[in-house]
Amino acid sequence: MLSHEFQKRVRYGETDQMGYLYYGNYAQYYEIGRVEFLRSMGMTYKSLETDYGVMMPVKNMEVRYLRPAAYDELLTIKTYLKDLSEKDIYFYVEIFNEAGKLVNGAKIKLTFIDAKTKKSIPTPKILFDTLQPKN
Amino acid sequence: MLSHEFQKRVRYGETDQMGYLYYGNYAQYYEIGRVEFLRSMGMTYKSLETDYGVMMPVKNMEVRYLRPAAYDELLTIKTYLKDLSEKDIYFYVEIFNEAGKLVNGAKIKLTFIDAKTKKSIPTPKILFDTLQPKN
Amino acid sequence: MLSHEFQKRVRYGETDQMGYLYYGNYAQYYEIGRVEFLRSMGMTYKSLETDYGVMMPVKNMEVRYLRPAAYDELLTIKTYLKDLSEKDIYFYVEIFNEAGKLVNGAKIKLTFIDAKTKKSIPTPKILFDTLQPKN
Amino acid sequence: MLSHEFQKRVRYGETDQMGYLYYGNYAQYYEIGRVEFLRSMGMTYKSLETDYGVMMPVKNMEVRYLRPAAYDELLTIKTYLKDLSEKDIYFYVEIFNEAGKLVNGAKIKLTFIDAKTKKSIPTPKILFDTLQPKN
Repeated sequence: MLSHEFQKRVRYGETDQMGYLYYGNYAQYYEIGRVEFLRSMGMTYKSLETDYGVMMPVKNMEVRYLRPAAYDELLTIKTYLKDLSEKDIYFYVEIFNEAGKLVNGAKIKLTFIDAKTKKSIPTPKILFDTLQPKN
Repeated sequence: MLSHEFQKRVRYGETDQMGYLYYGNYAQYYEIGRVEFLRSMGMTYKSLETDYGVMMPVKNMEVRYLRPAAYDELLTIKTYLKDLSEKDIYFYVEIFNEAGKLVNGAKIKLTFIDAKTKKSIPTPKILFDTLQPKN
Repeated sequence: MLSHEFQKRVRYGETDQMGYLYYGNYAQYYEIGRVEFLRSMGMTYKSLETDYGVMMPVKNMEVRYLRPAAYDELLTIKTYLKDLSEKDIYFYVEIFNEAGKLVNGAKIKLTFIDAKTKKSIPTPKILFDTLQPKN
Repeated sequence: MLSHEFQKRVRYGETDQMGYLYYGNYAQYYEIGRVEFLRSMGMTYKSLETDYGVMMPVKNMEVRYLRPAAYDELLTIKTYLKDLSEKDIYFYVEIFNEAGKLVNGAKIKLTFIDAKTKKSIPTPKILFDTLQPKN
């Protein structure tokens, strides 16, 4: 399964008064994970929007919160391409803390819309070409 | 099933360049929904932390994104108490747009920790007392 | 001076581990204040963008942080129209806590751009018409 | 004047429907800038809180928004230590886009409080020691 790792530090503004990364801020980490995954494959999400006129809204998401993440911790976001079908793209994400312990896991499915009409479209060919496992 | 409705307007800073409420910002709506649900039952989450020394971290969450929510729309957050067990509390959330269409649905399970030790604790008695259906 | 009051509660996700409203989140309160000020005058910012093709980016901002704002406090955002000139609009904002104490003060100047070209434009006539003090 | 550069990419969730980095999100960039500035000097803000019991709330801030910052741009945050006095610390921040153009400038003053009592305290000696220009 194709995967990619990216690191991000927990910032003060992302914590809450419980003293940990706020549960709602993990979604930004998933976004960063999949965007950097795509970049590592030679495709930017920006280009997908600008050059190909395609947007990728999230369709559904399942999240498990296993351990808290503390302020200033350097987290590792591991993003796996679970599946690319005719109409959606499916990622698994695992976030690890500095001790290598699993902090959070997520499954996220995104679909495709035409950036102008905002109507559903099938998975763009460029994504199949880009996400082909390289030999 | 006990439930509560609360309204919140989509703010500019909550949208993204797709022109809709950013997918990661829904978690704040769920937080508002359950906190206002508790308040409607006569309990503030603030008091739970301050007076009872109990925190309620989210354990897991499932989200379906059905329709986009536009800037300045007045959304209705409907929060249902699905279950209160010996060790966790389970909410369903439905978010509706101004036309009454379902925008988003979520299932969220939270657990309890001691505010000082940050260790797991059973569901506090005060919550059973508070969330008893009133006759 | 035209002014308007609007209330907003401090949410958990807006606090940080210092236990107070994060300093960066006040800007959202100013946004809410000026948007609700405009609405109270019969104009929505949404309509300004959609119907008049005008956007209002912030040009500069001065902020004083006087007191911390605690979780779950119901803050009062008081927004004053300080000046409306040929090329910008100038707001003062004061945020009060539940005890009526001043928590935060800001001065914010916004300019106007054409929503399509993103080029600077003079203050739209509709704003002068709308923000005329009513007798 | 001591200074430090740090890069951060504009993320999707940080943009708004104007298509640019939301004006309220710059404060997070300033936070990152000063925390990384301190780290480059051998001091973590985390340690200041945890080991020295000192918190640094922002007292005031002046911001100029000069150019918009686009999604996915790699911004350079340049943080200058403008002054360290007996009771506060003063930073200048400049944010540049990929073309080297100045996007945003800020002046930010922070004070010191005791992490436990939340009362004002003078500038901790450790900061004077740390922020001594190294020869």
